[in-house]
Amino acid sequence: MKLLRVGAPGEERPAVRTDDGRLLDLSGVTPDIDGVFLSCGGVDRARAAVAAGELPELDADGLRIGPPVTRPGKIVCVGLNYRDHAAETGAPIPARPVVFMKDPGTVVGPYDEVLIPRGSVKTDWEVELAVVIGQRARYLDGPDAAHEVIAGYAVSHDVSEREFQLEYSPQWDLGKSCETFNPLGPWLVTADEVADPQNLGLRLSVNGVKRQDGNTRDMIFPVAHLVAYLSRYMVLEPGDVINTGTPAGVALGLPGTPYLRPGDTVEPEIDGLGGQRQTFAPA
Amino acid sequence: MKLLRVGAPGEERPAVRTDDGRLLDLSGVTPDIDGVFLSCGGVDRARAAVAAGELPELDADGLRIGPPVTRPGKIVCVGLNYRDHAAETGAPIPARPVVFMKDPGTVVGPYDEVLIPRGSVKTDWEVELAVVIGQRARYLDGPDAAHEVIAGYAVSHDVSEREFQLEYSPQWDLGKSCETFNPLGPWLVTADEVADPQNLGLRLSVNGVKRQDGNTRDMIFPVAHLVAYLSRYMVLEPGDVINTGTPAGVALGLPGTPYLRPGDTVEPEIDGLGGQRQTFAPA
Repeated sequence: MKLLRVGAPGEERPAVRTDDGRLLDLSGVTPDIDGVFLSCGGVDRARAAVAAGELPELDADGLRIGPPVTRPGKIVCVGLNYRDHAAETGAPIPARPVVFMKDPGTVVGPYDEVLIPRGSVKTDWEVELAVVIGQRARYLDGPDAAHEVIAGYAVSHDVSEREFQLEYSPQWDLGKSCETFNPLGPWLVTADEVADPQNLGLRLSVNGVKRQDGNTRDMIFPVAHLVAYLSRYMVLEPGDVINTGTPAGVALGLPGTPYLRPGDTVEPEIDGLGGQRQTFAPA
Repeated sequence: MKLLRVGAPGEERPAVRTDDGRLLDLSGVTPDIDGVFLSCGGVDRARAAVAAGELPELDADGLRIGPPVTRPGKIVCVGLNYRDHAAETGAPIPARPVVFMKDPGTVVGPYDEVLIPRGSVKTDWEVELAVVIGQRARYLDGPDAAHEVIAGYAVSHDVSEREFQLEYSPQWDLGKSCETFNPLGPWLVTADEVADPQNLGLRLSVNGVKRQDGNTRDMIFPVAHLVAYLSRYMVLEPGDVINTGTPAGVALGLPGTPYLRPGDTVEPEIDGLGGQRQTFAPA
């Protein structure tokens, strides 16, 4: 099932996207798509309501698509999780996941404007597979147990300011947490509809020029490993988001490629999870 | 004014602590002490209700004290912000604030049990001055503007696992985000009652032995500078917490000093902001 949230920022209502592209209003089933919905059987209730034909259709015309889950409790990011991206940034292949965080307030919709921070000269792109947590996870036994706590997947754009991230201090979070820096969606695809999260092509274009073209099979640490690993060091809660890393092709790794400037458009997409499109503007 | 939250975890009610140590029930004024309360005149309403003698007294006997604000939207931490602590860890004095983040789900009450993560051998202490944001802050003009967005101050214990933080990857967040790793409180002291946030003694004892004994005057980047700096790179929202760094005296910096083990008690305190006491237990 494809779950989404539509409407003005802060006033989104939950919806389901049918296989033939219609939007069904889910607000009779749940007030929102959040941790409670995901952890307390909401997906099953939504599926039953769709099957029973109970959900009214929404007029999708001109309707903004917001992020597919409410503000996450946290966004955990994994750096350098594709061999080719580690290589392009000059970093060694990590022996353990490189874990950092992003302000959860950075989440915006998949077609919303993204702001280039004041003073920024190195705003960069990163298409990533986002994992959305569906059940509380704490000291999981291992990767097999991870599948039970994953609600689903979405496209995530882990926008990054390289000067703030890499040159201002050794800690990356500053360059990852700028306003609007995490477009998410268009929808949350429930885990049952993603046959193999380790075989998804993911691509990103800037002004129509393809810059990233990878596949999740090239992750150093696959999704189930990451979820189990993280659960040993922090409590993952329903609605939390994990950005699982980006393949090669970011501006940082492409000498001579310009960083993002106002007016640029960026289009990240992942097989089966849909596509995004953002125009960049000055903050 | 000293604001706090009392009751079982997840069921805390808001309260005011009077100068003579009584607790007044604030739940007639606000359902909670959160970003909405702090940003929409809640402190003034609470002060007026106290002055009018409208608030019933609570029986403090056996009442748990929770964290003084609801789960923050984010916890921003500043590393190496005291010269003596930077020196003891072998790090150079940073030219800019070293900014990282902590899972906001780590916040617990000031006297709650703290869990030593499974497999941990380097769980360490850090007493810190926490700044609680009261108004949305985005691209502040400078340190003078920072004072208008600070709701108040609290004692924060930035518990840290040094192996996870420093040895598993170059990014620190993993060793800062373990379950229960951020005791906060006992109260939020409103900014008007803290004459000079850069002249507060802060101390921490482990099993009765004083380990940290510093003063906020020794911060490399003072509070107002930090708030203004952060607002240039991320949006600070009401209820967000900034941990402003720790002075010297952590186990990492004291060769031969044991890290924390189950049964140990830690007592952080800051002049005018109260004291905490945690017993450590296995996760």
